[in-house]
Amino acid sequence: MKVSIISIGNEIMNGFTTDTNSSWISRKISKYESCEVTAMLVAKDQKDDIISNLDYVIATHPDYIFITGGLGPTHDDITKKVLASYFKSKIVLNEPYYIKLRQYFKDKKIRNKINLKTQAQILDISKPIPNRCGTALGMAIKHKNINIFIMPGVPREMQEMMKNEIIPLFIDPLYKKIDNYITILTTGIYESNLYDILKDIVNKYSDKFMVSFLPSYTGVKIRLFKSDPTADLIKFKSLIVSKIDRYVYGFDNDTIEGIVSEKLLNQGLTLAVAESCTGGYLSKKLTDRSGSSKYFKGSIVAYNNNIKNLFLGVTNDLLIKKGAVSSEVALEMAKNIMYKFDTDIGVSTTGISGPTGGTDDKPIGLIYIAVVIKDQKIVKEFNLVPSRREHREVATHTALNMLRLLLK
Amino acid sequence: MKVSIISIGNEIMNGFTTDTNSSWISRKISKYESCEVTAMLVAKDQKDDIISNLDYVIATHPDYIFITGGLGPTHDDITKKVLASYFKSKIVLNEPYYIKLRQYFKDKKIRNKINLKTQAQILDISKPIPNRCGTALGMAIKHKNINIFIMPGVPREMQEMMKNEIIPLFIDPLYKKIDNYITILTTGIYESNLYDILKDIVNKYSDKFMVSFLPSYTGVKIRLFKSDPTADLIKFKSLIVSKIDRYVYGFDNDTIEGIVSEKLLNQGLTLAVAESCTGGYLSKKLTDRSGSSKYFKGSIVAYNNNIKNLFLGVTNDLLIKKGAVSSEVALEMAKNIMYKFDTDIGVSTTGISGPTGGTDDKPIGLIYIAVVIKDQKIVKEFNLVPSRREHREVATHTALNMLRLLLK
Repeated sequence: MKVSIISIGNEIMNGFTTDTNSSWISRKISKYESCEVTAMLVAKDQKDDIISNLDYVIATHPDYIFITGGLGPTHDDITKKVLASYFKSKIVLNEPYYIKLRQYFKDKKIRNKINLKTQAQILDISKPIPNRCGTALGMAIKHKNINIFIMPGVPREMQEMMKNEIIPLFIDPLYKKIDNYITILTTGIYESNLYDILKDIVNKYSDKFMVSFLPSYTGVKIRLFKSDPTADLIKFKSLIVSKIDRYVYGFDNDTIEGIVSEKLLNQGLTLAVAESCTGGYLSKKLTDRSGSSKYFKGSIVAYNNNIKNLFLGVTNDLLIKKGAVSSEVALEMAKNIMYKFDTDIGVSTTGISGPTGGTDDKPIGLIYIAVVIKDQKIVKEFNLVPSRREHREVATHTALNMLRLLLK
Repeated sequence: MKVSIISIGNEIMNGFTTDTNSSWISRKISKYESCEVTAMLVAKDQKDDIISNLDYVIATHPDYIFITGGLGPTHDDITKKVLASYFKSKIVLNEPYYIKLRQYFKDKKIRNKINLKTQAQILDISKPIPNRCGTALGMAIKHKNINIFIMPGVPREMQEMMKNEIIPLFIDPLYKKIDNYITILTTGIYESNLYDILKDIVNKYSDKFMVSFLPSYTGVKIRLFKSDPTADLIKFKSLIVSKIDRYVYGFDNDTIEGIVSEKLLNQGLTLAVAESCTGGYLSKKLTDRSGSSKYFKGSIVAYNNNIKNLFLGVTNDLLIKKGAVSSEVALEMAKNIMYKFDTDIGVSTTGISGPTGGTDDKPIGLIYIAVVIKDQKIVKEFNLVPSRREHREVATHTALNMLRLLLK
């Protein structure tokens, strides 16, 4: 299966929007045996450009073409018009979908504004593809043995169409899904240290697996690619993981907050959070998941020392003697939020995210994170990246990782 | 100036790496008068694919071609070999650069690992482009009036080459830098509604400006592009803004949290937050900016009704009679957090982000947001996207927008 992907949009061509649709589609396609993306192009919202892109990819004889973008209601959305002229087809109204749209938008004022008619129009040679989270219909066209899918450029709308319609109807029945890669997610260890531990295994199996290390502030991803179809990827993964177990928090699309939430749910534990420098970010992550009210009771963000004193019960004496950024205050915050909110676990953060507020004694990047689980108390000091945005990101990730390790 | 961009790399074609180089280059190019990117393609690390991409773009007669990727030392980096055969040229060692590299990597063990020789090789028809933060040399080739630049795929290395070598030497002397675009950020109004208000102006000036509408869940960006170099962009911007003033919260790289923070700082006001469904996200946004402790005192995330009752002073009577998701509870939360934390402003959110927890009366998506500023009280009901992640995103954005409008 040879696949071409065309993203249509002036915004992509002039660099204001990064095309994430093509890589999303490609990742989905790569999961099927002998399926391969062989062309990825960007076209402007211009007739000539869209046509020359189509000519180019059709000349490569693909089995599938995925086209995204240019289905909206404004003047620069011309994909449908261009395709109608390219395929010598007509644009027609899809009555059932139009009626459904009108029912959904009951308010006449809104209805007039959205121009539902253009959103319910498709080429007469196409099958409509419903849109679950937007208004524009997608289309499926068969042209000289090529399956062509036209989808909106809004990533979520495109993704829902792919997941709910195109993949189950046009791909799953024809191609076998295979696992040819796994991504191992690690945190708390440098890339070079990981490589030192793993290099012998990596070299030994280099004819069967390709291993890439992908570092970021919050950890290193290790991607294992099966280059020999007969190789056992699961066994190789287990071998790798066995050497670095402590640092592995998940695989593929896992998130550290997802892993922690799962553990809390499974163990029936409740938690409360007292945040200073992370400013609510830790609470946000812990409530990302549906059902989080089962384990998350609430939090106090105490950005101000008065709040730490009055609502988190940290004495002014301690705040003056040790400073708000100290292991003692972190521990008090975690302990007191646990008692006050009557939970099994209390977590706290207090640090200096910068770019101001650092001193010689307590430089920007310094943070104390405390976790209290019943009578177990842990507080740790970290010196994280001295740039505000990344500091808050890494601090939150680190707090979640401490929780993960304690919940094991 | 017509520009084509080709990104080379299996990782991009199979979707694991999103191509950010093309949009970065395109954004830089768009800043020059009459410069335009007209083609953007991805090629695999395969000879045939790279050649067919080159054939395609050269046939469009570009003035510049930017190629990134495939200059590394591993087996799949074949860009140089393919280009040598395409341009019937030879690969030669650039002695001065090789010597420099060897001096830099004094440690023989590292030197052997990196294979410095291939990194210092270029086509004999090319001029070398130094690499300030990596090892592979870039290349500049003149081919039939086309300026071709070949750069590494690592974003930082490519960006440094562009900024320090290619732009100052090959673009700045030839093209005038101009402010040819402005982005207007709006929220609280549909794309089609905006279009209705603006379409007459857009059409009237369509020979001078290109106007794009870029909708997302949190608002619509309006991008104004100057297509006639003599046109007055600032004046056109003012004309557009005058019609939609209320919905405009900023320009270009502004964020709504940045705008709100600025207002709070300027007006010397302090604020506290009581969050339910947004779970800490609103507090996080309000503390994104350095110096936020000047206006942000803290917040209580009350995910649990007990917390709403005990720490936010919402009576159990009200919680039972009206429900936690109600305008009355929202208002109590905002008012009480303001009194408790002794601030000028209290903000609250209470809603149903889903995917569970909805009823016929109170469907998923429903949210109440309250803002209390001294004796001014406002509470609003919204029915936002019924998908958890977006709901929390839009809810936070909407709360910030209510604040913005009240602080005007």
